[in-house]
Amino acid sequence: MKINVLFSNIFLDELYFTGKTVVVIDVLRATTVITTALANGAREVIPVSTLDFAMKISGDAFRSQTLLCGERNTKMVEGFNLGNSPLEYRPEVVAGKSIIFYTTNGSKSIVKAKFSKNLFACSFNNLPAIANHMTLLNEDFEIVCAGTNGMFNLEDAVCAGILISEIRKLTDNVQLSDSANASVILSTNNTKNLFNFLSATEHGKMLIENGFEDDILECAKIGTTDVIPYYVSGTMKRL
Amino acid sequence: MKINVLFSNIFLDELYFTGKTVVVIDVLRATTVITTALANGAREVIPVSTLDFAMKISGDAFRSQTLLCGERNTKMVEGFNLGNSPLEYRPEVVAGKSIIFYTTNGSKSIVKAKFSKNLFACSFNNLPAIANHMTLLNEDFEIVCAGTNGMFNLEDAVCAGILISEIRKLTDNVQLSDSANASVILSTNNTKNLFNFLSATEHGKMLIENGFEDDILECAKIGTTDVIPYYVSGTMKRL
Repeated sequence: MKINVLFSNIFLDELYFTGKTVVVIDVLRATTVITTALANGAREVIPVSTLDFAMKISGDAFRSQTLLCGERNTKMVEGFNLGNSPLEYRPEVVAGKSIIFYTTNGSKSIVKAKFSKNLFACSFNNLPAIANHMTLLNEDFEIVCAGTNGMFNLEDAVCAGILISEIRKLTDNVQLSDSANASVILSTNNTKNLFNFLSATEHGKMLIENGFEDDILECAKIGTTDVIPYYVSGTMKRL
Repeated sequence: MKINVLFSNIFLDELYFTGKTVVVIDVLRATTVITTALANGAREVIPVSTLDFAMKISGDAFRSQTLLCGERNTKMVEGFNLGNSPLEYRPEVVAGKSIIFYTTNGSKSIVKAKFSKNLFACSFNNLPAIANHMTLLNEDFEIVCAGTNGMFNLEDAVCAGILISEIRKLTDNVQLSDSANASVILSTNNTKNLFNFLSATEHGKMLIENGFEDDILECAKIGTTDVIPYYVSGTMKRL
C-alpha cells in the first residue's frame, strides 16, 4: 500500500479526497477527544467546520441528547457545554450523547475530507488499533495532519511517523511518499518520552501556558483504547 | 531571529508575505536555474506564475534581448527558448538577457511571495552565501519550500534544514518554529551525499526517468557561487 502524508488541512480541495482512504490526526487535541468521547460511550461526534454551523445544528437538536463542544484558539467557546480537553469527556458526561464538535484545526480537517471513501481519526491513544486496521484494510491511504492554523506542526507529523512505523512492523507491503518518509524520520528521535516531546512543541507550550498540562499527559498515552472513530454520513462513530 | 518554514507554496495568501523577509527554495530545479542564470551574466530573471502571462510579456519584449524559459511538469514548453536545466543557462546563451521564467512550482512560489519586503532565491549552489547574508541581515524570516504540485517534497525541506544549520554556525541568535526544527531534523541524515539523496527523492527519481540525471549532479553542488538572486520590481537580479 502507498502512504502519503499531508502536513496541513488547508491547501487541498475537498474533491481531492473523493474515493480515498484517509486518516486524520490532530493529537493536541481534537482526535484524542473524539477517540475518548467514543470510548466513553458517546453515541457519535459530529465534526463541524464553522462556529455558525455548530450553533445552528445544536439549536435544532434535542438539548438533553446533544452536547455542543470544542474550542476556538485553545479556549472553550461561550455557550458551549464542553471544551477540547479529553479529560472532560468522562463516561457520566458523554454516554449516549451526540457531540457537536468544533475546533480550530481538527474538526475542520475531518469536514474537509468528508468525501473520502473511508475516514478514520487517529491519536496516540488509539494508534496501535489504527495501525492494525490499516494493515488489514491494505489500501493506499492519506494521512491528514491537521496542523495548527493551516501550518505544519511537529506533533501530528511525529504521530503520522509512528503510525507508519507500526504498520511497517505488521506488513512489508508499504511504499512511502517523500512526506511519509519525512514523518518517519521526524518520529525516530521523538518516541522515547512523548509527554516531554509534546510539551516542547509550539502547540504544547501554548497549552501548558493556558493550564492544559494534564491534557498533554493524556494525549501522550499510546494504545489506551481500541476504539476507531469512523466517519459515516456526517458523523464519527465507533467502527 | 525567528525562522519559520512553509512546506508548500500553495496554501498561503499573497498578503501573508507583506513586509516579511522570505527565502524561496526550489532545489530541483527553479532556484538552481535562477542562481545559475544570474551567475552566468543574465540581466534578470522574471518569474511568472502562468503560461499565458509568460507568452504575453514575451510577445511585448524585444526578442533578441529576451529568452522565454522554463517547464511544465518537467518538460520544456513548446515555443520556449530554454527548459529548466541549469546546464542550458551557459554564459554565451544568457549573458545580458532578460529571462522570462515559468515553472510548475518555483516561479509560482516567487510570484506568490511578491509582496515580501525582501525576497531571495536559495539553492544548494548559493546556500553558504544566503546563510551569510541572512545572518548579517539578522531579521526574522520565512523559508518557502516550493514543494511539488502544492505538496511537500523532501529536497526543499532538507535544503531549508541545511540553510538553518549553516546560519546557526554563524550566530546563536536563532529561534526555530516546529517546521524549522523539522527541517533541521530531516537534513541531519541527508547531507553526506547530496547527489544520492536527491536521486532518491520522488522528484529526483522522476527527473532521472526523464533523462535529467546531469541536472541533479549540478543541483547537488554546495557553494559554487556567491550570487544571491533578489526580487525587486517584478524581477530577480543579483543582489
